Amino acid sequence: MSNDKKITIGIIGMGRIGNVHFNNLKQINNVEIKTICDIVATSDWLEKYSVREVVKDYHEVLDGPEIQAVLICTPTDLHPEMTIDAANAGKDIFCEKPVGFDDEAILKAFNTVKKTGVKFEVGFNRRFDKNFDRIVDYRNEGSLGDEQILKITSRDPEPPSMDYVRHSGGIFMDMTIHDFDMARFITNEEVDRVFVTGNVMVNDEIGKAGDIDTAIITLMFKNGMMGVIDNSRQAVYGYDQRIELFGSKGMAHADNVTDSTTTYSSKDNVAGDKPMFFFLQRYMDAYKRELESFFGAVRGEHDVQCTFEDGIRAIRLAQAAKQSLDTGKVVSVKDI
Amino acid sequence: MSNDKKITIGIIGMGRIGNVHFNNLKQINNVEIKTICDIVATSDWLEKYSVREVVKDYHEVLDGPEIQAVLICTPTDLHPEMTIDAANAGKDIFCEKPVGFDDEAILKAFNTVKKTGVKFEVGFNRRFDKNFDRIVDYRNEGSLGDEQILKITSRDPEPPSMDYVRHSGGIFMDMTIHDFDMARFITNEEVDRVFVTGNVMVNDEIGKAGDIDTAIITLMFKNGMMGVIDNSRQAVYGYDQRIELFGSKGMAHADNVTDSTTTYSSKDNVAGDKPMFFFLQRYMDAYKRELESFFGAVRGEHDVQCTFEDGIRAIRLAQAAKQSLDTGKVVSVKDI
Amino acid sequence: MSNDKKITIGIIGMGRIGNVHFNNLKQINNVEIKTICDIVATSDWLEKYSVREVVKDYHEVLDGPEIQAVLICTPTDLHPEMTIDAANAGKDIFCEKPVGFDDEAILKAFNTVKKTGVKFEVGFNRRFDKNFDRIVDYRNEGSLGDEQILKITSRDPEPPSMDYVRHSGGIFMDMTIHDFDMARFITNEEVDRVFVTGNVMVNDEIGKAGDIDTAIITLMFKNGMMGVIDNSRQAVYGYDQRIELFGSKGMAHADNVTDSTTTYSSKDNVAGDKPMFFFLQRYMDAYKRELESFFGAVRGEHDVQCTFEDGIRAIRLAQAAKQSLDTGKVVSVKDI
Amino acid sequence: MSNDKKITIGIIGMGRIGNVHFNNLKQINNVEIKTICDIVATSDWLEKYSVREVVKDYHEVLDGPEIQAVLICTPTDLHPEMTIDAANAGKDIFCEKPVGFDDEAILKAFNTVKKTGVKFEVGFNRRFDKNFDRIVDYRNEGSLGDEQILKITSRDPEPPSMDYVRHSGGIFMDMTIHDFDMARFITNEEVDRVFVTGNVMVNDEIGKAGDIDTAIITLMFKNGMMGVIDNSRQAVYGYDQRIELFGSKGMAHADNVTDSTTTYSSKDNVAGDKPMFFFLQRYMDAYKRELESFFGAVRGEHDVQCTFEDGIRAIRLAQAAKQSLDTGKVVSVKDI
Repeated sequence: MSNDKKITIGIIGMGRIGNVHFNNLKQINNVEIKTICDIVATSDWLEKYSVREVVKDYHEVLDGPEIQAVLICTPTDLHPEMTIDAANAGKDIFCEKPVGFDDEAILKAFNTVKKTGVKFEVGFNRRFDKNFDRIVDYRNEGSLGDEQILKITSRDPEPPSMDYVRHSGGIFMDMTIHDFDMARFITNEEVDRVFVTGNVMVNDEIGKAGDIDTAIITLMFKNGMMGVIDNSRQAVYGYDQRIELFGSKGMAHADNVTDSTTTYSSKDNVAGDKPMFFFLQRYMDAYKRELESFFGAVRGEHDVQCTFEDGIRAIRLAQAAKQSLDTGKVVSVKDI
Repeated sequence: MSNDKKITIGIIGMGRIGNVHFNNLKQINNVEIKTICDIVATSDWLEKYSVREVVKDYHEVLDGPEIQAVLICTPTDLHPEMTIDAANAGKDIFCEKPVGFDDEAILKAFNTVKKTGVKFEVGFNRRFDKNFDRIVDYRNEGSLGDEQILKITSRDPEPPSMDYVRHSGGIFMDMTIHDFDMARFITNEEVDRVFVTGNVMVNDEIGKAGDIDTAIITLMFKNGMMGVIDNSRQAVYGYDQRIELFGSKGMAHADNVTDSTTTYSSKDNVAGDKPMFFFLQRYMDAYKRELESFFGAVRGEHDVQCTFEDGIRAIRLAQAAKQSLDTGKVVSVKDI
Repeated sequence: MSNDKKITIGIIGMGRIGNVHFNNLKQINNVEIKTICDIVATSDWLEKYSVREVVKDYHEVLDGPEIQAVLICTPTDLHPEMTIDAANAGKDIFCEKPVGFDDEAILKAFNTVKKTGVKFEVGFNRRFDKNFDRIVDYRNEGSLGDEQILKITSRDPEPPSMDYVRHSGGIFMDMTIHDFDMARFITNEEVDRVFVTGNVMVNDEIGKAGDIDTAIITLMFKNGMMGVIDNSRQAVYGYDQRIELFGSKGMAHADNVTDSTTTYSSKDNVAGDKPMFFFLQRYMDAYKRELESFFGAVRGEHDVQCTFEDGIRAIRLAQAAKQSLDTGKVVSVKDI
Repeated sequence: MSNDKKITIGIIGMGRIGNVHFNNLKQINNVEIKTICDIVATSDWLEKYSVREVVKDYHEVLDGPEIQAVLICTPTDLHPEMTIDAANAGKDIFCEKPVGFDDEAILKAFNTVKKTGVKFEVGFNRRFDKNFDRIVDYRNEGSLGDEQILKITSRDPEPPSMDYVRHSGGIFMDMTIHDFDMARFITNEEVDRVFVTGNVMVNDEIGKAGDIDTAIITLMFKNGMMGVIDNSRQAVYGYDQRIELFGSKGMAHADNVTDSTTTYSSKDNVAGDKPMFFFLQRYMDAYKRELESFFGAVRGEHDVQCTFEDGIRAIRLAQAAKQSLDTGKVVSVKDI
């Protein structure tokens, strides 16, 4: 049974998302985290994390012959170089999104991965959310007929810190990139052109940093269908994550997720819980399922479910969106 | 076309419910209200109501040869006598619920109606609510399989006046009687025995008047299925009217009706409208549909949909419930 | 009491919508329909409609000195001329949407109405829908904070006849025009620019007639907020009419309206009713409330709630949308 | 920090529920499972479960000086004896429900636990369900006012095997016992008397085994409030677990839990997921939270949240229910 084959891995980058994956891995059988790596790692991490090895230089992770796969959870600008080195070391790679900032570096990493033949998965966790997956189920079984309109509402509960905003690559690269990937994943179609309108409505500081915080993005697909994404950096009622796919035979609609199903009826109204506030809580299951899927691919049980190409195409959409915002015009989405 | 045949009617009793029917009749084609009757009627009602005749003595309504049907909307204790007189005058009768208080008088009226062959409908308006009707649709089409559990939640938004309480005949005769009728209507089965627990939890004055305001009534049906009604005289969040029928193949559940479908998501919660507060608003459509049904029966298009026998059986359930409350024991429901 | 003052009216045009208003008027007190007018009227309409006068030439309606107001329910191209004649005859006017097709004729009618000072209301019935009104309530009471994103989903249950399509003025003038009016009504803000993407996805015949059947319209408001409308001529699950207004303090969302609140739980799923299919059923209350509001304005109880200017501005949005679709560019919305 | 203190435990009984707890323990920090015990244990379990010790005789677990607490997950009739031995060995005890079948044995165990002062928690997992907990939150914060009516719907997705039925102790001891505990937990009040009606409606074999499969249980509380539980061994649409608490200031209602929030609108209806089918899935979080709570109590961070007394009171309710079913009468609930 393939599940019996233990996979030994290393994690490069133990920031927030690195720790999320570390904790989820405890619940996944037959995967051992041998080494964790972070430039700020200290010797007491050996005990704190109960791992065999803690290093500061990621090359030491790649040197480990036992290590079959690595999770790259470092800042985005480091992704391409680490990907190249890991691929050349023959390690299968799970890399956080986006796959990089610099086009040339990204393509170099992409080509190295192709050449070396290692498995590479991008961490678009929302593909593994069971609510969104249900939409894909309905589409796959033909219940929706011809796809016609896609709608994605994606609003954060609160804006990130200004320091984060300044290094995020902008709203499209940091936040909408998830929605761009979902647009492709939910429809299984490619976007041809985009049109964007956006503004600073949440926090003037974001505008001063050269970014926007509220946007509506129209998607024109190659097959003639159309879509719209609406984004806000601040929905006071929580993390608003809804997707709707409308077709000739029906519509599938994934609503928000709440902490409980309990309502309170009073003299004022009938009130239920808000959408879950925190993205790690909202997508807790999805984060675990994406790792399980990665290890399934590493074991050869199925194809990689979110490829390097997917990672690049999401970036192409973000780049087109930025250009549309800047020019006020419809912009064609570049191929890889 | 039978709808073309105009029906001329009189309304006896122009209190609250008489006026409800009067207003609904404006929207019903081919029915003319020739005469209205009330002991407190005054001459200016001719203009106020735009009818041909206003009288104080109901016998004058019955004397009108043009009048084919009457609506009896007077206090309950007058129902049997008026029914007898109207039946003997050959008028079809729509009578408000309950059909009476005194058993002997009720049975005399029942026999007169049978003997004269006039049509007689009791005003259990909830039978004509489209939400509850959907449950019956599911049952009739076989989607529920064998019926197993019936649940009725029926809570008023606020208690009636103490004056009303004192003359209401008690909670079972005044309020639960609707639920007893629904129990029979929704299931199309007869109740064999009842068990009641009840208490005064809303207003001590109700207790001093010898009544209760909160009750749970268990229904044991002749076919072995079972049901439960829960009643309260005061649900602060509105008129709570839910019914659920559970069977071997599925469950149908009718939820409350609200003023709008609009929700408000804030930093506190996601809030929607309360259930409609006022029974005339909640059952507005049902009140109109019950009259349409009555006139359909008068025209011979279909049978009477809520018969005198239905009216009596609801009373038998109310009587058994009272006895169970008083004795703390299971009580068999009398036949007619 | 102002409600006591009877208003005598005429209806010009007794097609589908003329009959809708005729029937709703039966439930409105103190309004008498003296005359109905239609070019295909026949003498038996006197009895059929129980009115005092049936005419074929609308000038005869306007000649009636008793008549205080008229409802114009004729084809759109006739609206301006009839409006001018009615205004010059001193009649208050309720005119179906849109107020006309030809810009010059519309503006001439607009100026005549201004000059004569008669009251004029456009029939954008959705303004009187209680679900959408609730959104406005939340906005007005400040619960939404600064408005940021408006979303309107408006999908018909099935496409109109091809004959209708050919004379409708196009999807934006016939269907989206309601959504354009709602965009202004819900936000109380003006749209500065629009961008449209659209396609033929429902029925190729519509394309051959030079129209589209599926569209996404981005709205850029003067105050910086943004909105999106998505339209389809065919939602197989019913008439899909949802509006959402998102702001700095919260979000109000009006969901679809269904026939019943009843759900059916089976071994397959938990299923509820589809959205109401037919627009006359879905907006039945709104059609009645818009007339009540018009007569309130005629009596001077409040201002006209949907003015000639509102009618023109909706057309300006439709015109800009058409131009954006044709050019693929952002288009500024003309002033009146 | 108390969380730092590692707790070493043993699990006695590695059947279905033992394995559930075993797997949940992997996600709980600072708890080590040193020993597992089962009469059918084999030597390969050492590897299979990765524990230090696998034994067949539970006394060997109790002999381990390192072991601070044990989970008793054996068949019900063994609970009292094992509890006594574990208590005498000074181990804190988490014991599955019910605490036993035989009254004398239960009370002996209860007294031993009291005498030895070890901590003892009964595994009524539903107390740790976040939906039901929300009801308690609303009650505790005073939002419900005076409690008046409690309603519990508890229906299994399918009946257990006939072999299980025969050894289950009957529906009240096996299935309703959870609802009896919830009745006490949700209200924080004690039940004075019960009345039961029940029948065999799902499977005649259950009747032949002397049990019923469908029941309605009326609860009369000491404080005058009332409640009702309805049970079925088979709801074809899934595991139906709803609780509602109605009071003078409002109502809290916990609805079913579904796999996803995704709905599908088609020409037939708008359909969502069924309630989760399997109890381990439905209460997955609750099972984990109950263990966390137990270890919190072991560490002295808070009191035991579901005591031996709670375990006995639930049995008293089950016993009274059985007697009411057998006699058709109201039965008083015995004290401990």
